[in-house]
Amino acid sequence: MADVFTHPWLGSLFGDAATNAALAAPQQLHNMLGVERAYTAALHATGQISAEAAAVVDELLANPNLDMDMLRQGTGQDGMVVPALIRQLKAQLPEEFHDALHTGLTSQDVIDTAFVLSIKAIIEDFLGRLRRLVSDLQQISQTHGDRILMGRTRMQAALPVSVADRLDTWRIPLAAHLDRLTTSRRPIEILSIGGPVGTRTNDDVARHMATAFQLDLPGKAPHAMRAHVADFANVLSLITGSLGKMGQDIALMAQQGIDDIQLSSGGQSSAMAHKNNPIHAELLITLARFNATQLSGMHQAMVHEQERSGAAWTLEWMLLPQMLQATGAALNSANALLGSIERLGHTSDGN
Amino acid sequence: MADVFTHPWLGSLFGDAATNAALAAPQQLHNMLGVERAYTAALHATGQISAEAAAVVDELLANPNLDMDMLRQGTGQDGMVVPALIRQLKAQLPEEFHDALHTGLTSQDVIDTAFVLSIKAIIEDFLGRLRRLVSDLQQISQTHGDRILMGRTRMQAALPVSVADRLDTWRIPLAAHLDRLTTSRRPIEILSIGGPVGTRTNDDVARHMATAFQLDLPGKAPHAMRAHVADFANVLSLITGSLGKMGQDIALMAQQGIDDIQLSSGGQSSAMAHKNNPIHAELLITLARFNATQLSGMHQAMVHEQERSGAAWTLEWMLLPQMLQATGAALNSANALLGSIERLGHTSDGN
Amino acid sequence: MADVFTHPWLGSLFGDAATNAALAAPQQLHNMLGVERAYTAALHATGQISAEAAAVVDELLANPNLDMDMLRQGTGQDGMVVPALIRQLKAQLPEEFHDALHTGLTSQDVIDTAFVLSIKAIIEDFLGRLRRLVSDLQQISQTHGDRILMGRTRMQAALPVSVADRLDTWRIPLAAHLDRLTTSRRPIEILSIGGPVGTRTNDDVARHMATAFQLDLPGKAPHAMRAHVADFANVLSLITGSLGKMGQDIALMAQQGIDDIQLSSGGQSSAMAHKNNPIHAELLITLARFNATQLSGMHQAMVHEQERSGAAWTLEWMLLPQMLQATGAALNSANALLGSIERLGHTSDGN
Amino acid sequence: MADVFTHPWLGSLFGDAATNAALAAPQQLHNMLGVERAYTAALHATGQISAEAAAVVDELLANPNLDMDMLRQGTGQDGMVVPALIRQLKAQLPEEFHDALHTGLTSQDVIDTAFVLSIKAIIEDFLGRLRRLVSDLQQISQTHGDRILMGRTRMQAALPVSVADRLDTWRIPLAAHLDRLTTSRRPIEILSIGGPVGTRTNDDVARHMATAFQLDLPGKAPHAMRAHVADFANVLSLITGSLGKMGQDIALMAQQGIDDIQLSSGGQSSAMAHKNNPIHAELLITLARFNATQLSGMHQAMVHEQERSGAAWTLEWMLLPQMLQATGAALNSANALLGSIERLGHTSDGN
Repeated sequence: MADVFTHPWLGSLFGDAATNAALAAPQQLHNMLGVERAYTAALHATGQISAEAAAVVDELLANPNLDMDMLRQGTGQDGMVVPALIRQLKAQLPEEFHDALHTGLTSQDVIDTAFVLSIKAIIEDFLGRLRRLVSDLQQISQTHGDRILMGRTRMQAALPVSVADRLDTWRIPLAAHLDRLTTSRRPIEILSIGGPVGTRTNDDVARHMATAFQLDLPGKAPHAMRAHVADFANVLSLITGSLGKMGQDIALMAQQGIDDIQLSSGGQSSAMAHKNNPIHAELLITLARFNATQLSGMHQAMVHEQERSGAAWTLEWMLLPQMLQATGAALNSANALLGSIERLGHTSDGN
Repeated sequence: MADVFTHPWLGSLFGDAATNAALAAPQQLHNMLGVERAYTAALHATGQISAEAAAVVDELLANPNLDMDMLRQGTGQDGMVVPALIRQLKAQLPEEFHDALHTGLTSQDVIDTAFVLSIKAIIEDFLGRLRRLVSDLQQISQTHGDRILMGRTRMQAALPVSVADRLDTWRIPLAAHLDRLTTSRRPIEILSIGGPVGTRTNDDVARHMATAFQLDLPGKAPHAMRAHVADFANVLSLITGSLGKMGQDIALMAQQGIDDIQLSSGGQSSAMAHKNNPIHAELLITLARFNATQLSGMHQAMVHEQERSGAAWTLEWMLLPQMLQATGAALNSANALLGSIERLGHTSDGN
Repeated sequence: MADVFTHPWLGSLFGDAATNAALAAPQQLHNMLGVERAYTAALHATGQISAEAAAVVDELLANPNLDMDMLRQGTGQDGMVVPALIRQLKAQLPEEFHDALHTGLTSQDVIDTAFVLSIKAIIEDFLGRLRRLVSDLQQISQTHGDRILMGRTRMQAALPVSVADRLDTWRIPLAAHLDRLTTSRRPIEILSIGGPVGTRTNDDVARHMATAFQLDLPGKAPHAMRAHVADFANVLSLITGSLGKMGQDIALMAQQGIDDIQLSSGGQSSAMAHKNNPIHAELLITLARFNATQLSGMHQAMVHEQERSGAAWTLEWMLLPQMLQATGAALNSANALLGSIERLGHTSDGN
Repeated sequence: MADVFTHPWLGSLFGDAATNAALAAPQQLHNMLGVERAYTAALHATGQISAEAAAVVDELLANPNLDMDMLRQGTGQDGMVVPALIRQLKAQLPEEFHDALHTGLTSQDVIDTAFVLSIKAIIEDFLGRLRRLVSDLQQISQTHGDRILMGRTRMQAALPVSVADRLDTWRIPLAAHLDRLTTSRRPIEILSIGGPVGTRTNDDVARHMATAFQLDLPGKAPHAMRAHVADFANVLSLITGSLGKMGQDIALMAQQGIDDIQLSSGGQSSAMAHKNNPIHAELLITLARFNATQLSGMHQAMVHEQERSGAAWTLEWMLLPQMLQATGAALNSANALLGSIERLGHTSDGN
């Protein structure tokens, strides 16, 4: 069941194509080469390398000849891919131009900025999908909102509420997350350029790159200050958590004996032909608990020693991409689930 | 070792007096009675009860005669204290005035708003302490910033940096957390008035109370929408996480053989007279990992079913207060630790 | 809401008197003094101190005059209580006998062994309570087991099962936990005697103490090897997790519209007189999720550097006691919940 | 950086080939078909289907013609792959033999047992690798054990210890984990056969299958009792936690200024030619913290409602495979790290 997000069959449940593509190895490599290109361009624009050097390096970076086996081997040796990547690129570059490639950067500059470029695209996508969910929930409220549900507290019948009341508890947090994501994207959408020990000596180059990528340029490279990454992970888990509440409600509403919702199409059982399982409702709960679990590790990774911690940084690599993928999956599932609602609540005479 | 925060001896390590007091049972009871008083006052101000009723109830709430054993017993019976509290209060109130007390509220209205009043006071306090830490770090940078440290990446000597460079990685995130706390206090500093199933029928009363408490009034009671609580817990863990990074750095700097810092007073050993343990540096790491652990549970608690979940809500009671206490302890320890710095880094000739 | 376990009113919900007492400060102090007494006795029994010295020290340890303020202050200074405790005790002891008190021990020896003595008593208690739950569930199965429930998978009606089938899923894991607790108590019920850097030079003394306390003596002091502690925490969370499944099932069974269970007494609402909330069922879910949260931190604490880590060890102090308390509370709640069952399932004609 | 374990370049750091292969989709499919074959064979052996039916079904299962797109699509529809798999298989089977395929099983029977078959192979592999690490550490102790280290407590120089003393704290827990894994493999290496609502009506068939797979047959199918799965995850995290302690120690020992270890080959930096990063030591810390994070979710998944929970079960799919992969990676890294040790500690005259 390894890697549920890109798995041959589980991928159709957990896989969000857009998020997967933005995080996949080809896109990562493309982004890393893009960071190197922007760096070389910035060196030229600020008069630190010749036009010829810039052109030669850019041409190489646009069409490098990369041996993936050596990238893989180098990663196992160095703990990250960039040293092997630069060794390969320099081997294809006349030595006179070596200073025009990567010189002054460090691996974390390249990897973090490349990751941010993926994150930026994903945030754009998530904002659109969140807006659509909010709008769909408004639409559903207009259609079904006047109907009646038994309000339940502590899992016991309390007093009747309108369907709109219940729907409000699903929509209002998503609307707030739209704002949160808009706010919290700024600290994460930053250029990470600091050099070997994060003390960035060339602000002109950094400014040039930031403009090119439309990223903010923080006063100091964030190599060892990781709160903004943990904070962004928090927003992802807030989104899946609120969708998990919706999923839990729907799974409860779909129980025979409660019958507060009718879904058009659920999952089949291999053993019971009559089953119509609310699999997207359940999946939203799963994904909420998954991200809530991962978030803890992202906060552990804030204890990031000295100028750069391999241990803490690598932990982020293991956790944040799958939090993004789980969030993409939850947005998908929520969309499918809302689209399958045929009836919500009851008329006042109980139908 | 139960309850380290208020423990007879461990309390001096983990205990932050201000935070402890704001969360202690007497203050909780005071706040709950305050919510009831404000509710009765608002009922009167909006013309729903007589002046006499308001006066009688207010007098009772100002000096109630409460049997703590019965409160305790009622909590064990009902799962929360409010039903027993109201039963006791009504027993001291002529029946004609019963409608002027609590009627229209639900337990969660009272407990959540009372908790928010404590949180509000704690946030004020934390903001001041964070500001002081930022200012202390600036001061330390002015005093020691020009000195030299060996910058270390992946725990290996990399290139020299200035002491100011290292200090920046401690201060910048704290300054950002000041902003985050200022932003995220708004969604948590809200009046939670919704009635039994959260559908608040009396907006005038709620507005009146919100003004009295200087709390925001959300469009819908947040009984079952808990993202704002998880989001606030995230800020607490960001604060302790950034302080944990500082603690980890200082513990590493204080190693014999590294000697990048001199602390004036550390902990003694019961076995080795020469030890000078950097206990506050270690404690900051502990508290960071503690809050990172708890945060996961706060996000699990977002899967809050229907109009009100006893299971998910009660989980917040177990986690959020201790996250606040751990954050208060970390702010204390950081202050003590910075105050004990006697030397940072080295002169260029290695002293 | 700080410290729910010993809280004036929440304590009746979360507080397990036996567990609380075993972990409370007076018992801790008693246990620490007991460790010192056993150490002095062992020094004498192995011929390393005179009978007179042993008697004088023992008399002091049996009735020490302790200034709690100084213990508290010392803990804040040294990061643990033992150095201040020993300083106070030695101040009451003629200098000629100082070598007969604590000399050769380290703080962690005392604190860990004292904690283990509490844990040992708690394990005994938990084993008895688990056995009773297993037996109660067998009894309930004999009474109600032949009745019928609609079996539910993925929260949808599947096929009917007997009440005994459902009860089996509650009882079988508890019986397995009895075995697990019996197995995993051995690695935790050990004497922790290693001296300053854990290299125990006096095996005779250690053997003597182990016999006195009926604890195992590991080949090497476990100061820096913490897997056995994390492993024990795992068993606690397994117990609460299995009880949480029972709580979740009962909360679902108690829903109006499902009506698979009748409970004699539930919680009242402050707003709705008809409510009969299944608060113990909910609490079991809460406690399961609480311990599942804490367990992560106990495993983080295994990354325990060098001969002894203040940071990792202190994290255990913050987490393990409350996991024990939560487990005690869950055993209590489960007992109360089973005792309140009046009806389970239905007859074949639906009553 | 998605799926670090099978990633084109990160895979050489995180990827353990044996574990990856045992968990990969082709092996899963192979195992699921194997479960169906064993079931059909058991139906025949117990006289419930004809020899002809058994032969026809077995031939189909040995060489099925499967449309992976339809498996994928079906998983998205049904929330698991088995219904679509059975639909495809039955479409290739004369209707008269349909009863000889899967009839009486449920999806969870097939998926859980197939997963257990992978886990069983992985456990065998891990036991061998753990034994080798224990033996390597004994060897290293024989070579370097007499040398000297400064023992460090609370990250401060305490008293000298021998290299053997430090090595003991790495080896002893691994030897204990060998025992734990041997003990805890029994409850996980079970046949999961229960049918739609877990009430297994055909014990003969189940016994036959259990013998064929050399798996234990529990009295009741474990569909909804998940403690054994969480308990197994705990052992994985204990292994990575103890290796994380070794990694943390080595990263600290490799610091310039401490120089307690000499490693033959570390990672290179893209910016600093002199760096020799202890990447495997760091990776062990990362993997320990990763598994400690995941474990929390595995314990959350014990709150598994009714006869079968889609939400809780699916959470296991997301967490346990990566815990196995992380454990495999840690065993690899530990092996590489120990193999790169050139010097440990110092002679008594400081070399």
